[in-house]
Amino acid sequence: MSQRGEASDARFRRVAVIGVGLIGGSFALALKAAKACAEVVGVGRSRANLDAARSLGAIDVATGDVAQAVRGADLVLVATPVAQFAAVFRALEPVLAADALVTDAGSTKRDVVAAARAQLGAKVAQFVPAHPIAGAEHSGAAAARADLFRGKRVVLAPLPENAPQSIERIAGAWRTCGARTSNMSPDEHDGVFAAVSHLPHVLAFALVNDVAERANAAQLFGYAAGGFRDFTRIASSHPEMWRDICIANRDAVLEELRRFGSQLESIRALLAAGDAAGLEEVFAKARAARNRWLDGEFDL
Amino acid sequence: MSQRGEASDARFRRVAVIGVGLIGGSFALALKAAKACAEVVGVGRSRANLDAARSLGAIDVATGDVAQAVRGADLVLVATPVAQFAAVFRALEPVLAADALVTDAGSTKRDVVAAARAQLGAKVAQFVPAHPIAGAEHSGAAAARADLFRGKRVVLAPLPENAPQSIERIAGAWRTCGARTSNMSPDEHDGVFAAVSHLPHVLAFALVNDVAERANAAQLFGYAAGGFRDFTRIASSHPEMWRDICIANRDAVLEELRRFGSQLESIRALLAAGDAAGLEEVFAKARAARNRWLDGEFDL
Repeated sequence: MSQRGEASDARFRRVAVIGVGLIGGSFALALKAAKACAEVVGVGRSRANLDAARSLGAIDVATGDVAQAVRGADLVLVATPVAQFAAVFRALEPVLAADALVTDAGSTKRDVVAAARAQLGAKVAQFVPAHPIAGAEHSGAAAARADLFRGKRVVLAPLPENAPQSIERIAGAWRTCGARTSNMSPDEHDGVFAAVSHLPHVLAFALVNDVAERANAAQLFGYAAGGFRDFTRIASSHPEMWRDICIANRDAVLEELRRFGSQLESIRALLAAGDAAGLEEVFAKARAARNRWLDGEFDL
Repeated sequence: MSQRGEASDARFRRVAVIGVGLIGGSFALALKAAKACAEVVGVGRSRANLDAARSLGAIDVATGDVAQAVRGADLVLVATPVAQFAAVFRALEPVLAADALVTDAGSTKRDVVAAARAQLGAKVAQFVPAHPIAGAEHSGAAAARADLFRGKRVVLAPLPENAPQSIERIAGAWRTCGARTSNMSPDEHDGVFAAVSHLPHVLAFALVNDVAERANAAQLFGYAAGGFRDFTRIASSHPEMWRDICIANRDAVLEELRRFGSQLESIRALLAAGDAAGLEEVFAKARAARNRWLDGEFDL
């Protein structure tokens, strides 16, 4: 299930980055820093953001047109919010060269693969799905950094249609950015990230809203300190991106909300009953598990 | 409600710190660094922890006996988990000098004030309740630092019985540690911190347990990244301390759990209905509120 690759050279002529945000911009900067590509064309909706990407050196050419960017490219990264993937695939399919490969940075994989199958036809073999685990609460090209992926994990969800050398070439591109790659099926991926990423984001958004909606919100925020700040850091994440992730992975996120609700209810019941020993046991189990995780016991 | 004091000199002869953990140890180190006390006596249950406090220079003398430490002290800090406060107050009352003052570091205030009233009798006038907002997920004397309170807020919950000069002297001690002080009633304090501190701790413990209890926990932790790490940082907090806080502030924490559950249910309903626009609105509101908070809009 997990497969750690060796670093390898991946060289590209022209890279098209569709969606030049934090992830797309950092991918471009990392390939350029590694001298792994000759030229990057960036596609985006916002002129200001593309200008920022260009002045940062992430992209050489900016356009609003997917087909124009993909024509002549041998590597395409799709890094828009996932709800736009179908339209992006539809636009790039007619102009995608036979030797070109496509990868993505979507935080969900089942929906992305379904969109690719629906839109790319036989060219779906040229698409190697990927999810870099390197988000941040900052968004936009201005936040991009060449070292964003250094030491981070990129999950590949290769398709049965992918040639082994295509998978290896895409894995190589991500490793050139400094990432460690491993493989999962789209189903497995979406289940895992619903639990460890999508659910915590929903909880963080919920807690901030819960506070913000009150009459004494200013007082509450006034006394909120470091614990609140770290707990809610991911509530500063991009709303459109997280809307798309939740919708795309709806069933798994709903199941996670159900499970979390039942966990929370069991703690609530201990508290309501004044069961101090029971509460301490739950808290101690959580601390021990988290500390084992920090100590690297679950490192892949 | 809020009252920011001027820095002032607070000098003490002998300081007794009951519970030499992160908070008690840091209080002692800060007073010593400011040359604000001649001697610190530390009281603790664990020999190893007291030895750590002594080798760190936080305390000069260690004892397991509250009365022995408090005899001759002109300042007492009670910094044990809050469930022990009644026993500590009972032990110190007979030996507390007429010119001595007591403060505390409990994260709840209603229960602490009730315990003080029940155990201290007329000497309750010498007790000025306080809550330093400077926790950390690390615990124990070894984690103590002279600058833990620098720039942090300490909420005082003065009693009607306190003389103004007693309140000022305790506020001065905390300011000598580098803290900014403000005042709240015990009820107000417990409501505010149930929302911005106690609830997030319970949620973080719950999320870690939710993951840790699964058959594929190792895989889930293996892919958990920075968002999960920050969200759950407070789940590495001290289980006994948080057990006591939840029990002591039970009604307010239960009310917070109810409110949060209803917030989460409204997000769940949006997701179940596939209401993308509704979800984005909720997420955007949360991000905007958190960013206003980070920008200092709610600074006291």
